Amino acid sequence: MAVTIVHVAAKAGVSPSTVSRVISNDSRISQKTSRKVRKVMEELGYHPNTLAKSLVTKTTNNIGIVLPRPADELFQNQFFSEIIRGIVTKAASCGYDVLMTTGASPMEEVKAVERLVQGRNVDGIVLLSSHKDDTNISFLREKKFPFVLVGRSEDYSDITSVDNDNIAAAYSITRHLIQLGHRRIGFVSGPMELTVSKDRFDGYTKALLEAGIAIQDHYVFEGTFTPESAAHIADQLVKLEDRPTAVITIDDVLAFGIIRSLWNNGLRVPEDCSVVGFNNTSLAEMCLPQISTVDIGTYQMGQSTVQALIQHIKGDGFEQARIIIAHQLIWRDSVRPPEQS
Amino acid sequence: MAVTIVHVAAKAGVSPSTVSRVISNDSRISQKTSRKVRKVMEELGYHPNTLAKSLVTKTTNNIGIVLPRPADELFQNQFFSEIIRGIVTKAASCGYDVLMTTGASPMEEVKAVERLVQGRNVDGIVLLSSHKDDTNISFLREKKFPFVLVGRSEDYSDITSVDNDNIAAAYSITRHLIQLGHRRIGFVSGPMELTVSKDRFDGYTKALLEAGIAIQDHYVFEGTFTPESAAHIADQLVKLEDRPTAVITIDDVLAFGIIRSLWNNGLRVPEDCSVVGFNNTSLAEMCLPQISTVDIGTYQMGQSTVQALIQHIKGDGFEQARIIIAHQLIWRDSVRPPEQS
Repeated sequence: MAVTIVHVAAKAGVSPSTVSRVISNDSRISQKTSRKVRKVMEELGYHPNTLAKSLVTKTTNNIGIVLPRPADELFQNQFFSEIIRGIVTKAASCGYDVLMTTGASPMEEVKAVERLVQGRNVDGIVLLSSHKDDTNISFLREKKFPFVLVGRSEDYSDITSVDNDNIAAAYSITRHLIQLGHRRIGFVSGPMELTVSKDRFDGYTKALLEAGIAIQDHYVFEGTFTPESAAHIADQLVKLEDRPTAVITIDDVLAFGIIRSLWNNGLRVPEDCSVVGFNNTSLAEMCLPQISTVDIGTYQMGQSTVQALIQHIKGDGFEQARIIIAHQLIWRDSVRPPEQS
Repeated sequence: MAVTIVHVAAKAGVSPSTVSRVISNDSRISQKTSRKVRKVMEELGYHPNTLAKSLVTKTTNNIGIVLPRPADELFQNQFFSEIIRGIVTKAASCGYDVLMTTGASPMEEVKAVERLVQGRNVDGIVLLSSHKDDTNISFLREKKFPFVLVGRSEDYSDITSVDNDNIAAAYSITRHLIQLGHRRIGFVSGPMELTVSKDRFDGYTKALLEAGIAIQDHYVFEGTFTPESAAHIADQLVKLEDRPTAVITIDDVLAFGIIRSLWNNGLRVPEDCSVVGFNNTSLAEMCLPQISTVDIGTYQMGQSTVQALIQHIKGDGFEQARIIIAHQLIWRDSVRPPEQS
């Protein structure tokens, strides 16, 4: 049988309404009484019914995450598990749980956000990705519902986002490869509708143009964040007569896939082609060769996202802000100067 | 301003109590009225307040997961992200969200389960691991609260669990290595307090004893599921005079780490030592050499777990059962017969 407020009241020798006031931190209750009642609550293992409490306080202490579709690909990518690790850990340390849902289609994903907001299931929402004309962002802005975007919005500057300077990071990688002597540098992107893909591509082109190297369309590949996509791109790379001597990918999974597929085609990394990843997942370090990549502070991004969201929920002196997490280039074995030809 | 039941009633030309009856599927409401009201709800974007509804129906349509401590290591492991992928996807398709929380200590983890149950935040709970004398299992059993265990409980046979036959899987791997000619076979385990570690170790010893090979204590290593732990174990392996010619690990992350650390010590896989992983994460396939491993159907485990849990929650004809997901050995490049010596 569940312990109720009546059991607590009886054991503490007070009325049920006194117990109720203790739970709601009513100022009419003395410190002494409060302490006594809370002690009994603890002893009996009594927990106020969170649902009933939520209806009164209108808070849930839940943070919502709608996993971007397709959820199937999502968790295969260490970036997402790492950011969720940061989110869940930070949320728990602040007394929040994380409510996850997903939708099978873009339409369902939008419906899921609406449901979380309008059903008052969560106090705030984390958006894990953004694209142009993002329906979720415009809905949440309109409802003035607390949310934080992981990434950058191209459409709105007045929302809180947590992001890297992806243009600067991709620019630095490309510049370093040029300084090593590479002139034929490929770029393997995620879907170009994603802001993160565009920003990293912009950094790549900026460095090339600055060095007087023309952008070659056939050196630029658009894929998805899967090994299969990487293998498909590597097959195209191998067939090029003027094959790049270095390839920048915007994700370690893509880098992994490219390295393996080149190997299967008889090409070695870095001897025949240098490869750079992005995100510094633990497997970039574990693989052979170890992959040069960019540490984007994914775990910290998750933590900062929750911190900003909770400030937003609580509203005390909160200002919308774009939070930039520092990145760091990690040079490992998958990169070297090109063969002299 | 939020749309309320009053707005819906006004627009549909019915009373608020009629709208309320439509929402709760009251049989007194005609199909025609129901359709009309639901159309208006859709038009106005009205969502019944989930919290208020939960108080009446006493359901939340949430499934709870308490991430096993330390959450920090957890998401680095693809097994966990893969099972959560199965859980979240299946739950969403059945109209359930997934509520995640974690605790910084064993005590906090137990408190988190108590809070979810007694605060009525979830309708059922998934436990992602188990060990001997598991406080969470005994608490949930006592409360008769719906839960499903991923893995096997050593203490209780009357609970629903979703698991592989880990003894049989480890037995088959070991037997195959023996058939290839290996006699010196190492075993790299996770923490031995975990049932999964013990079961896989039992399969290993069973095959060795059956082949008349003595268990060598110095061939058995207990680690954690991290690359660092694997590196530490590989350092010990390398120093052995009678080094094993094959090593079975109970996780692909451990296999990755061992392969890399052997390589750093000048030893090649599989030429100098065969290595087998477990769980068939996508990176076992991507790494060089590709790792022989066991496909344990992780995604399907997540899906079956949710399916069983929802049956349990709904209670219709539900019987406690041990559900065994089939495993499959995947032989790849990291295994070969030992050098003749």
